[in-house]
Amino acid sequence: MRISELSTKSGVPVPTIKYYLREQLLPEGERSAPTQASYGEAHVKRLGVIRALVAAGVSIAGVRRVVETLDDPPTSAHLLLGSAHVAIAPPADDALDLVAAKDLARQLGWEPGTGEESVLYAVARALDGLKAAGFEVAPALMATYLTSMREIADAEIAGVPTSSPEAAVQYVVLGSALVEPLLLALRRVAQQVASAKRFGGDVL
Amino acid sequence: MRISELSTKSGVPVPTIKYYLREQLLPEGERSAPTQASYGEAHVKRLGVIRALVAAGVSIAGVRRVVETLDDPPTSAHLLLGSAHVAIAPPADDALDLVAAKDLARQLGWEPGTGEESVLYAVARALDGLKAAGFEVAPALMATYLTSMREIADAEIAGVPTSSPEAAVQYVVLGSALVEPLLLALRRVAQQVASAKRFGGDVL
Repeated sequence: MRISELSTKSGVPVPTIKYYLREQLLPEGERSAPTQASYGEAHVKRLGVIRALVAAGVSIAGVRRVVETLDDPPTSAHLLLGSAHVAIAPPADDALDLVAAKDLARQLGWEPGTGEESVLYAVARALDGLKAAGFEVAPALMATYLTSMREIADAEIAGVPTSSPEAAVQYVVLGSALVEPLLLALRRVAQQVASAKRFGGDVL
Repeated sequence: MRISELSTKSGVPVPTIKYYLREQLLPEGERSAPTQASYGEAHVKRLGVIRALVAAGVSIAGVRRVVETLDDPPTSAHLLLGSAHVAIAPPADDALDLVAAKDLARQLGWEPGTGEESVLYAVARALDGLKAAGFEVAPALMATYLTSMREIADAEIAGVPTSSPEAAVQYVVLGSALVEPLLLALRRVAQQVASAKRFGGDVL
């Protein structure tokens, strides 16, 4: 199909498609004439992935890393998950103190060598943000966070398809990045429900 | 204290402090001379909140809404939670289909009138992103998401302090926005642990 049809099918405007082509997030179409290229279903699917990642707040550099992982997946399922996490993670920051993060990670069953250290930086950065704002998470609440996240991760990893590297990386990368906004949105709905139950119309 | 000392104490550079003052995120200091102002502990604390929100990915417009809620909190604890969610939520989008989102919300105990509809838009937007990428969440996994988020929200709302509107809004706004990166980071650590357990060094 031509670029105009690709645009209609994917819902992505032609100038944006051209931008993705220039940024090499989308592979070139097959040349059908010197100034014309032909695109296929793989392009429609890839545009869906890019659009979803961008909508999920992943940067263009992050999208590029995800796309590279999709194009050239590692051979081990565990390495795959690691590279997917690195692809969508913010860069490591040596200024961060990892002590508290490592303590929480250990409570999740983490040991040195378990996986990518970059995920610990993300925990440390989050703890740093809470500390800077003077916000403390009570120990009982933190325990609930750890239990819930472990239950979620166990269910997710149990569902990783092993039929092909492509299927696994698709599941892992998209599952990590795209499920995040869903979890956060569900949490807010659940907070509204719990708040209505506890406070109703109560005046402070 | 003078602006240079405020900068040292808060770790925020002077030009950034001036930017926050111009954007009215930070209240003016007390004029001590025509070209000089004096700042207090409230400014240090407010800068911590702003810096944490910005680090958590909240936009300047979002920070302004949070700051306005902190300066003028609503009188009901439930309304407070609602306005906090609205402050940090992306704008509603009428193009989104709310049917699937409402179905999930109902499973969390949501009924019409429970709270701010804006949280449903966030669910719909997340589902839309997953759909655009061709990613399906298996029903059993979705059930785990719903259960975990309900447990988290119940524990969080049970801990909302009711001593003062300021304490409650601080807890709700910061707890919503700043705990998000912590939950997501803990999920990734737990995924690495579960992945190492399931796959070890297995080759696909």
